[in-house]
Amino acid sequence: MSLTVVGSVAFDALETPFGQRDKILGGAATHFGLSASFFTQVNAVGVVGGDFTDAEWDVFRRHAINTDDIEVVAGGKTFFWKGRYEYDMNTAHTLDTQLNVFETFQPKLSDNSKNARILFLANILPMLQKEVREQCPKAEFVAMDTMNFWISSMKDAVIDTLKVVDCIIINDAEARQLTDEPNIHKAAKAIMNYGLKAVVIKRGEYGATLFTEDGYFAVPAYPLESVFDPTGAGDTFAGGFMGYIAAHNEITDEVLRRAMIYGSVMASFNVEKFGTERVDALEYSEINQRFRDFKRMTHFDEIPFERASAA
Amino acid sequence: MSLTVVGSVAFDALETPFGQRDKILGGAATHFGLSASFFTQVNAVGVVGGDFTDAEWDVFRRHAINTDDIEVVAGGKTFFWKGRYEYDMNTAHTLDTQLNVFETFQPKLSDNSKNARILFLANILPMLQKEVREQCPKAEFVAMDTMNFWISSMKDAVIDTLKVVDCIIINDAEARQLTDEPNIHKAAKAIMNYGLKAVVIKRGEYGATLFTEDGYFAVPAYPLESVFDPTGAGDTFAGGFMGYIAAHNEITDEVLRRAMIYGSVMASFNVEKFGTERVDALEYSEINQRFRDFKRMTHFDEIPFERASAA
Repeated sequence: MSLTVVGSVAFDALETPFGQRDKILGGAATHFGLSASFFTQVNAVGVVGGDFTDAEWDVFRRHAINTDDIEVVAGGKTFFWKGRYEYDMNTAHTLDTQLNVFETFQPKLSDNSKNARILFLANILPMLQKEVREQCPKAEFVAMDTMNFWISSMKDAVIDTLKVVDCIIINDAEARQLTDEPNIHKAAKAIMNYGLKAVVIKRGEYGATLFTEDGYFAVPAYPLESVFDPTGAGDTFAGGFMGYIAAHNEITDEVLRRAMIYGSVMASFNVEKFGTERVDALEYSEINQRFRDFKRMTHFDEIPFERASAA
Repeated sequence: MSLTVVGSVAFDALETPFGQRDKILGGAATHFGLSASFFTQVNAVGVVGGDFTDAEWDVFRRHAINTDDIEVVAGGKTFFWKGRYEYDMNTAHTLDTQLNVFETFQPKLSDNSKNARILFLANILPMLQKEVREQCPKAEFVAMDTMNFWISSMKDAVIDTLKVVDCIIINDAEARQLTDEPNIHKAAKAIMNYGLKAVVIKRGEYGATLFTEDGYFAVPAYPLESVFDPTGAGDTFAGGFMGYIAAHNEITDEVLRRAMIYGSVMASFNVEKFGTERVDALEYSEINQRFRDFKRMTHFDEIPFERASAA
């Protein structure tokens, strides 16, 4: 029932219309791991510098995330990203990126991490994603993220990795870019043709869609009147999605559908406060309440129309 | 159980990447009426010129739409709109607009039209919409459309009309423009505050959302790999929505939800061929099949998460 995530652990500096933070815990593996930890045992694989303090480790500890495979480079500094959001929270403006110890990141997986049933390859160099996937032959369900930078600079490598995973979780612009196909349904089919079982396309304020061989499933976003900090929302979605899958022995279409909802639930909490603050403090009762909210906002009874007297 | 629609009846000329048409039947009242006619008896109120031929009237006749209140100005010409769509089907580029007899349109409602239980005010001058609404005191549920042109040139008049209807059906850009509120949930609330029972926001390829006092309901768009001609999709949606409502004695939240689905179903057919071609030839079995498709693509079981052993 365990899940391994490989990806960045970082410090973020953020400026939003609602406030700012100079140095808070961030990174894809962090947001993903925290979110998934509500559903399953998580092993995180990453690298940090000597500037990583007990306050950061405590976040992982509170959620019983196994950090044995987070390498500490004592003389180095942790990956640092600084970004700004305007009132349009859809676009992050990068102000500064210091890769630091992440620049030469070589994931080192213990047997424990290698033996995970479920594996998530967060957004890192596609060749590294492929290497990690090949170190985990027992993984039953492997998903990957990627980003526009890799698709434009090394699309072939992204596709090589695609061919060895079961699922990709990306946003709609990335899906279009990967396939040169403006229609999102055609793009998803083109990606499925690389041999995937599932394609998840994140559409920001419009929700997310799941494509499988069996069909199509669409989830709206949770209706939020204000988004405080969208950093990590995509990874938090992926964490809820993969974590929920990891909690089930059989990965049926029904499980994937509910996983989409739990992913959406977790992402909706993530954006309510800075960084990991909101998810770190989350209760199961809040998760299930929002899951029920999703049911209420999408449910209708299946009653075919029958006209009393045909015209 | 009857429904009255007031709006344009037109000839359209269309250029799309998939072909062109020089003069086909169009107009808001046409698309709306055709769509609604599958669910209820429709009275159409509009005006056409002497160039309107039997071929056009036949479309209305085939669907038993009452055209007694479509005035014929024998010496005049029917409203004409010419537009072009690029591969991005979301934006219509207007090439020519000839209002013709529509320029001085004064809706004349017979008692039959005035006595309708359900009334739809398609996109015409807001003052005319208000006049029509006031001529129909028995109408139990009245919805209006509008457009960016009226909102920017006479927002006060649009709001005056808003205050005498029960529902507005608009797209997200119009909702934002009407309220100066970028967040769509806040925009919907601001509109509700004018005393409406329901706000329907159409979001094109992302589907549509319904706001009521009871809550929020979101419908994805039907997954179409290609859109042939989007002209009239919004009015076709409104026709399915209002027609379904008209077929029910009680307008409950559950009826409104299914109405959103039937509206989406009808709109999804409309875009598959030019103009009214597809909806004109539609069968009930096709409508119900696509309704079931919507259920399949949105359904998940409500199973709260319980962790076997809390971390």
